[in-house]
Parts: sequence; structure tokens; C-alpha cells
Amino acid sequence: MTMKRTLLAVFALGFVLVFGNLAIAETIDSLPSWNDGKSKQSIIEFVAKVTEKGSPDFVPLEERIAVFDNDGTLWAEQPMYFQLFFALDRVKELAPQHPEWEGKEPFASLLKGDVKSALAGGEKSILEIVMATHAGMTTTEFEQNVKDWIATAKHPTTKRPYTEMVYQPMLELLTYLRANDFKTFIVSGGGIEFMRPWAEEVYGIPPEQVVGSSIKTKFEMKNGEPVLVRQPELNFIDDKAGKPVGINQHIGRRPIAAFGNSDGDLEMLQWSTAGKGSRFALYVHHTDSIREWAYDRKSSIGRLDKGLDEAQANGWTIVDMKLDWKVIYPYEK
Amino acid sequence: MTMKRTLLAVFALGFVLVFGNLAIAETIDSLPSWNDGKSKQSIIEFVAKVTEKGSPDFVPLEERIAVFDNDGTLWAEQPMYFQLFFALDRVKELAPQHPEWEGKEPFASLLKGDVKSALAGGEKSILEIVMATHAGMTTTEFEQNVKDWIATAKHPTTKRPYTEMVYQPMLELLTYLRANDFKTFIVSGGGIEFMRPWAEEVYGIPPEQVVGSSIKTKFEMKNGEPVLVRQPELNFIDDKAGKPVGINQHIGRRPIAAFGNSDGDLEMLQWSTAGKGSRFALYVHHTDSIREWAYDRKSSIGRLDKGLDEAQANGWTIVDMKLDWKVIYPYEK
Repeated sequence: MTMKRTLLAVFALGFVLVFGNLAIAETIDSLPSWNDGKSKQSIIEFVAKVTEKGSPDFVPLEERIAVFDNDGTLWAEQPMYFQLFFALDRVKELAPQHPEWEGKEPFASLLKGDVKSALAGGEKSILEIVMATHAGMTTTEFEQNVKDWIATAKHPTTKRPYTEMVYQPMLELLTYLRANDFKTFIVSGGGIEFMRPWAEEVYGIPPEQVVGSSIKTKFEMKNGEPVLVRQPELNFIDDKAGKPVGINQHIGRRPIAAFGNSDGDLEMLQWSTAGKGSRFALYVHHTDSIREWAYDRKSSIGRLDKGLDEAQANGWTIVDMKLDWKVIYPYEK
Repeated sequence: MTMKRTLLAVFALGFVLVFGNLAIAETIDSLPSWNDGKSKQSIIEFVAKVTEKGSPDFVPLEERIAVFDNDGTLWAEQPMYFQLFFALDRVKELAPQHPEWEGKEPFASLLKGDVKSALAGGEKSILEIVMATHAGMTTTEFEQNVKDWIATAKHPTTKRPYTEMVYQPMLELLTYLRANDFKTFIVSGGGIEFMRPWAEEVYGIPPEQVVGSSIKTKFEMKNGEPVLVRQPELNFIDDKAGKPVGINQHIGRRPIAAFGNSDGDLEMLQWSTAGKGSRFALYVHHTDSIREWAYDRKSSIGRLDKGLDEAQANGWTIVDMKLDWKVIYPYEK
């Protein structure tokens, strides 16, 4: 190679290094598991207009906050919330230390394998199960309980680990938003300390960006070591009207994009879209009875009724799982 | 220039671009307002060992969490907490809407300018003043109240805006830690919504990294607009044993470095230093009666008594303001 050609090569390399990334971003599809259509287009158009310098809709980096519900939005929630499976498994594990449970509901039914009778008491029963399995230990011990369970437990019908039952198109969406300098948060009715131990690895969302329901904790010195002990007392329910409260408490600014799947997310979507400037709201509509589950207005889990009406009235994006998603789970790829 | 020299110049430029930053980082003092001595050295040594790849003390980027108290650690807190000046000023502003205050303590004394009598009722009086001035409006309205006040209010003795009464050496420390990929958080007994409106501009700490005390908020639709209304009910006191609770709730991981100035920060420092691996704790000791204030074991504000003993016993860094800091406030530079 002559000196002149070497020099040209050096400049060409520089050109590729500087402009290559832009070209790649434009030519490679960031949302490959999304079928082309209105849903995908609405996402791309929103991201383009809030990130384009000089655009009237441009949003500074620090204001690019996106919030995601978890159950039914980032991972599946049928035949019941996965955290409830965790609680039931914990009841079985803890039973030897609680002989009194044999004569006490909802534990007695649970231990006989009769989940339906156990949950017949509704919220009160669920609360008793949650407190028996989520309180009374240190935060470090509870974190380990969750890690042990999530590493081994399998979904009753798919027989897959729960962390494989996350939605591939939503994983791509999280990555796509972060590549466009969004800060992504989970805002879920699920337990904050139930999600944190695995959310970073599975979703790329660090513990400080997880908002959820919680019980109270208490600082104590235990054998000279400071610990936080989980108390059998509710602290915060991060659902429905609680979601904007949780967002304000943890994030302190209004999201510009919000993603949910049920009426429990409606106030979060209302709160996020009511801010000034360009806003985006999306509902995942569970329409695929073959590859996932189909449910909406009449479901006891993840009911989407009022939210569906609001979404239609407000022009929010409604993802039709069956039509919009090429694959549901990462293992289908 | 010959072709050969041009080529050399191109390579030399590349060398400067790649290695120049490293050289600058090593030769320029990141903490210019800190006098050379044990305190400054302890900070630099800690940061060096947790950021050096291959070091047995290396800490991955995502675990580099540093927490800072605010009152007395990042800004001054004498002759009383600045947020209390805000509350008193708000009482005066709101008085015309509350004719009943003329006959009601602690408001009556306050409006006569007798702060001492107003606060004689202790915590109960303070709570009444806080609720009267911090609750009953939307979060957006309160944010505006804080912004208006912080932009105009002046400290009673220095006559400076409160945001100028921040500690220059601590600002440098925040910047230095962030340059070393630390995520910096405020963890203060002060109101979370009182700090957020100015913490980003003054400290470079965004709202989602501010933890503080709070009252409850309630989601409501007001003329078709969703709002969060601040309720006259305590939600969380982020002080003493509450600080590790607040850290766990908001951050979800244990900090590796903690900075405070009073016994109210002791549990935060204990919690942070009790984790595995290399840890750092620092107390700012107010020893400068000329340039700032001198107080510790017997002060009613920012008392540092048990914390001072613990710091000495545990080998934590104790900053002697008078000896360790070249300047206190940015305007002295």
C-alpha cells in the first residue's frame, strides 16, 4: 500500500467509526419481533420525534422516563400472578416449622393442594399467605429466598422457568428505548423486593429503577450487625391510583411513556400522558389464546375493561398480541 | 508538511485523543478545595482501589452507590434547618387566607415574628407548621412554591441565597465520584419534594436519586386532569433508623460509600459499611466557627455525639472543616 493509500484508509476508517453507528441504527430493525403495523409504527414515530434535535417534540435526555407494568406487560400472569406461586411454594417449604397451619386456613387447604379453597377468602387470605411468606426475615434472607426460587421454579403449564416467560417484543422495546437514552422503570403492583433480585439480569432494569408494592421494614442490630427485618405490615400498594403515587415517590418526575396491560395501569397511563409535550401510552392486549392467553374485560387477573375504552377514546396504542408479535417468548425465536 | 509528517501527526492526534483524558485525570486535582491531609487522602485511596480493574477491592459500576445526607453535609443547617425558613415564609404568605391563625399557636407567635415561642411546642408545633405549609396543594403547585422561594429567599446572616450555602468541597466530591462512575444519591431527613426542585441544578443529583421524608399524596381527577394532592399525613421519616429503610426502599442495594454529619446519619453509615468488600464512611465535623459554625455533641441541630464516637472507633473519615477545607462556600473561591 502506498503512503497516500494508507492515509486514505486511515481517514476512511475514521469516517466509518464516526458515521457507522448512525447508519447501523437506521438500517437494522431494533424491534425484529414486532410485525410491521400500526403498533410498531407508533412506537418508532414517538421515539423519533422526541429524540430528534430541533424537533418541536424534542425531549431532553433526563426527562426521557419510561415506566412499565410487569405482570402481563413484561412477563405472563396466567393462570395466576407468578409471585403467588412463589408464596405457595414458600408455604410448603415453611410448613414443617408451622405445625399449627394444618388446622388453620388458608394454609390447611394450601397444604392439601387445594389452591382454590385456600384463595376463596379473597384478599384477606392472600394477605395472610403473603405475610407468612414475605415477612419475618431480613431483607438479605428474603432476597436469597427469591433468588433460589426463581432459579428453580417452573411454570405449571409451560414447564419453563418464569424468567423465560417474558415477552421478547417487550425486551426489544426496553433495549430500543434505552438505546435512545430513555431511563426504563418497572412500576408494578407486584412486590418491589420480589422483582429486584432478577429484574436487572432479565430486563436490564437495576434495583433503583424498580417500583412496587411493599411491606414495612425495620432497622435492627442483630449480633452486632445492622439488618433490615421485614415486618408483617403493609407499607404501600403500588396499583391503580397507587401507581402515580409510587411514580412520584420514587422517580419524582412524570414519565413521557407508559406501558401496561390492565385496568390496574390506567391511572399510570393517565398520569403519564397528562403532562406537557409529546407523550406515549401503550396497552398490551392479550389476544392470543394459542401462544399465550386471551383475556380482557371479564378476567379476574389482569382485567382490561375501562382501560380498553380509555385507550380507544384517547388514541393510545393497543398491541394486539396475536397480530402484532411475531414471537411471544424468547425461546420461540 | 510532507506526507510522512502528516501521517505522523494523524497518529499523534489519535494518541492524544485516546490517552489524553487519562493523563489529565491524573495530573489535575479533582478536589482542589480540600487541603492535603488524611481526609482527602482517604477519599482518593478508596476511589482508586474500588475503580482499579484487577484490584481485590474492585467494585462493578452498577454497585458504585454513594449516599449523602443533605442538611449539614451538602449545605449548611444553621441557625436552623433551611426548610423551616421555607415553612415560616409560607406561613406569612398564607396568613391572609387564614384569619384564624391570629388566635392559634404556633401560628400566632410566628406571625408576630416570635419564632422561639412558636417552636416552643417542639415536634408537635413543627408538624403543624409543616402540614399547614406543605399539604393541601397538588405536587405541581408545591414544586412551584419551592422554586419561587429558593430563587428569592436569603439566609438571615449571610444574606446569600440558600443554594449558595452549599459546601464547595462536597460539590467537588460529588463530581469526583460521578467521574469515577459512582451514582450519587441524597438521603436526607428533609422533605423529598423540597429538595428535588433544585437538587439537579445545584448538586447534579436528579429527582429519582433523591430520598427524603414525605407526606402522603393522593391521586385525583380535578376538572378532568389527573393530579396528586398532598395530604396532611406523614408518610415516611427518613432519619436515623429510617435512613437504611429509605435506602432499601428507593435504591434497593447497599451503598458502598456514605456521607453524613450528625447522629441522624449514624444508621446510614452503619448500614453502608456493614456490607461485604471495601466500604467508605465519612462524617463532616463542623469545627469552623469563623467561616461556618462550630457545633457537635451538644447542638440541638445536627448533633454529632454518638456518631463521633463510632467514627473514631471504626476508623471512619472525620472531616475537620476548619483544617480540611480551603474554602467552605463556592462564593469564597
